[in-house]
Amino acid sequence: MANNNIKNESITRQEDDFAKWYTDVCLKADLMDYSSVKGFIIYKPYGYAIWEQIQNFLDKRFKQTGHENVYMPMVIPESLFNKEKEHVEGFAPETLICTIGGKNDLEDRLIVRPTSEVLFSELYSKIIKSYRDLPKLYNQWCSVVRWEKTTRPFLRGSEFLWQEGHTMHETEIEARTEALQMLEIYDECGRDLLAIPFSKGQKTEKEKFAGAEETYSIEALMPDGKALQAGTTHYFGQGFAKAFNVQYQGRDGKLAYPHQTSWGVSTRLLGAVIMVHGDDNGLVLPPNVAPIQIVVVPVAQQKPGVIPAARELGERLKKLGYRVKVDESDRTPGFKFAEWEMKGVPLRIEIGPRDIENGVAVLAKRNDGEKIIIKQDELEEKVEVLLKTIHSEMYEKAHRYLLDHMSEVNSLEELKDTVDNKGGYAKMMWCGERACEDKIKEATTATSRCMPFNQIGFGDTCPICGKKAKKLVLFAKAY
Amino acid sequence: MANNNIKNESITRQEDDFAKWYTDVCLKADLMDYSSVKGFIIYKPYGYAIWEQIQNFLDKRFKQTGHENVYMPMVIPESLFNKEKEHVEGFAPETLICTIGGKNDLEDRLIVRPTSEVLFSELYSKIIKSYRDLPKLYNQWCSVVRWEKTTRPFLRGSEFLWQEGHTMHETEIEARTEALQMLEIYDECGRDLLAIPFSKGQKTEKEKFAGAEETYSIEALMPDGKALQAGTTHYFGQGFAKAFNVQYQGRDGKLAYPHQTSWGVSTRLLGAVIMVHGDDNGLVLPPNVAPIQIVVVPVAQQKPGVIPAARELGERLKKLGYRVKVDESDRTPGFKFAEWEMKGVPLRIEIGPRDIENGVAVLAKRNDGEKIIIKQDELEEKVEVLLKTIHSEMYEKAHRYLLDHMSEVNSLEELKDTVDNKGGYAKMMWCGERACEDKIKEATTATSRCMPFNQIGFGDTCPICGKKAKKLVLFAKAY
Repeated sequence: MANNNIKNESITRQEDDFAKWYTDVCLKADLMDYSSVKGFIIYKPYGYAIWEQIQNFLDKRFKQTGHENVYMPMVIPESLFNKEKEHVEGFAPETLICTIGGKNDLEDRLIVRPTSEVLFSELYSKIIKSYRDLPKLYNQWCSVVRWEKTTRPFLRGSEFLWQEGHTMHETEIEARTEALQMLEIYDECGRDLLAIPFSKGQKTEKEKFAGAEETYSIEALMPDGKALQAGTTHYFGQGFAKAFNVQYQGRDGKLAYPHQTSWGVSTRLLGAVIMVHGDDNGLVLPPNVAPIQIVVVPVAQQKPGVIPAARELGERLKKLGYRVKVDESDRTPGFKFAEWEMKGVPLRIEIGPRDIENGVAVLAKRNDGEKIIIKQDELEEKVEVLLKTIHSEMYEKAHRYLLDHMSEVNSLEELKDTVDNKGGYAKMMWCGERACEDKIKEATTATSRCMPFNQIGFGDTCPICGKKAKKLVLFAKAY
Repeated sequence: MANNNIKNESITRQEDDFAKWYTDVCLKADLMDYSSVKGFIIYKPYGYAIWEQIQNFLDKRFKQTGHENVYMPMVIPESLFNKEKEHVEGFAPETLICTIGGKNDLEDRLIVRPTSEVLFSELYSKIIKSYRDLPKLYNQWCSVVRWEKTTRPFLRGSEFLWQEGHTMHETEIEARTEALQMLEIYDECGRDLLAIPFSKGQKTEKEKFAGAEETYSIEALMPDGKALQAGTTHYFGQGFAKAFNVQYQGRDGKLAYPHQTSWGVSTRLLGAVIMVHGDDNGLVLPPNVAPIQIVVVPVAQQKPGVIPAARELGERLKKLGYRVKVDESDRTPGFKFAEWEMKGVPLRIEIGPRDIENGVAVLAKRNDGEKIIIKQDELEEKVEVLLKTIHSEMYEKAHRYLLDHMSEVNSLEELKDTVDNKGGYAKMMWCGERACEDKIKEATTATSRCMPFNQIGFGDTCPICGKKAKKLVLFAKAY
């Protein structure tokens, strides 16, 4: 059997410098590259292919739940942008502004969309006239620009790819249900596609989206103990509807304002996948999102019969719909192993002359290095089971890590110790006052991530101010 | 049988005002809307769904032919943009320029991409080092901005959706082959998806793309006699490679510049579909690109058993993978017929109490109004045949129109008569000099559309200057 113990020395080890490990993997697994526009990255084929898998998964679920895709202008007139006050205040500091079009100065400057609430609200003001026009369930796949000072691949960039859903409903309850339903779909995406357990909950007033009445989020926990906000859904109430004069004739014949939501996930999810699952050999991809699920590596491929045997295994799996690569390139198996490990391919199949003689093949799992010798005629059956096993193992590992890093705290000191030393979430009973959140942030840099839906409390007092506790909150340092 | 002779009076008739008919259909078939940003349209769900069908078709073919998707920044630093001289001159007059980011003036202004040759060239200069790195076959789905003074939905807009392929090759022949192969794929898209016969050929020097050595195009002929450039592919030679210093070590160990192509089609294809097939009742969609292929309309739906029967027919067809809508809305069949005709649904199935009694259903073809009574148990078989028939009939009709509007001309007068009165292409033998093209344009506003690949000539002399003819050219007025 070939030596697969060549460790990839071209990336920093996680324990030496996690941040450096992360950017090393982004570059060496060929997910992205930097461009000459500061803060704007290039999504290279392998990175973009992961995003395509996420798009396919979500787009199907969006359509199943009655949503329709549209495409809105990439720029927003400044005059329109200024209509919803809180929203403007939230985004204005980080906008990219066009001032010249066709060699002429623009009278109304154009803001490259940081998000499209105002454009959707304006459209809805034109097309919603009656309760019969509701709900309107639109979604858009596009990129948005937010001018950031410090950027990191996939996690924070001046331009990122995302989807933004924008919906209008007759009643408050319908709109809230929509916001919660979409959070559920994001959660499914974590569970079934990305093998990431999310913590779901509602944002505090301090942390909610600019202009929203309520923001819900999915939060993922990274191995360095920091939380990553991986997606949000918002209930807007009637704020934008009033600012943009979206009115419809209700069932009672009277004019009314509809209730609005928006929701989005972005290429940030790639950052979550990289960090949650990766190791010192590079990327580790869950099978359902991997652009290449199985790589077949011929061993001693110059020997007669080896390449045909590798191809045959590959073809059998392709026929079943798996995404398979047969690596016939002119490199040693060790180099191939290292490359496909770096790229996180979930399952490797090795086949050499002796395997052919014995009618077997070797299956190697990327997530834990386990190797299994199978009979060739069991291939389809074993691969199906193994890919499912890999997914479950990856999810379970991430879930165990999450549970192990969820600590109840009863004082600011305990909270500080948790986020500084142990890492992960400090679960705290909270009075509901912003002052306490501010105090925690000042003392620890940790922020409230969400008020989890699961509100099984463990005390009556906010340990920061001593007042009566109203909510269970997860605090953590965050990306 | 229900009355389906309600004609839609809400759109202008083609013969009264073709341009007005076109924008009426765009709006009334709910394909798009205008936005508050001048020249930027909103792609509404029904229009975007057609684009998604085109994307699916092409993306699959691109991947089958070895291309990989990437995503590049939406803005280009002005300094970078200025590196290839001809290219800049072509695009600079219609650029949208960002000058402010995060409240600060930008030192290097950012141009919203009108096309991405320079960004791809820059990336390639970083990642192509050896002949082993070639070919590089990248494609990008995105929107681009070209600041246009006069705009028309889908045909000419300040922002449009497209794909842009950018490839690098070792040899000239490979790059030329790529440019021609991609043109072939666009042609397939016309033939198999859009039911549009394209005229394929090479652009003259005057009409080629800014910075290209050769431009190839597919041209479609509209019912008003004007041609529509529906897609282009370009062979760039080594121009950009030299400007951006893309060099690789060749098989002989020497440094060399690779040969480059780019190619793109856009949402302009929607404009072609609308015009080529549409009629006075609205859109007529070819079955393969139609978001809804079959609409089932219950007649006298309040009668017992009608809605269940309509649903059953719908379900049987959905099971086979057809895109089906069962219209149970509370409107008269006449209104439903008119709406789905406006939206161009290729096949309508009517079912009412008497049909149920007799075990039949009525199938109505959108393209020619033909109605066929079928036995319900023949449904699957008949629908399959009919959809194929509709596609063929639509393609053939467009093809006949094209052949009928392809006139050989032997003088400027004949050319003028053709483009002014008969419409369509004036086929002319041409000397190859720009002066003659200029003269024709001045006298008629017609431009050379392409030098068709099929160069079966019919004379030796350019009728404009009397010099020896070198090429057969198609001239036409164009969008």
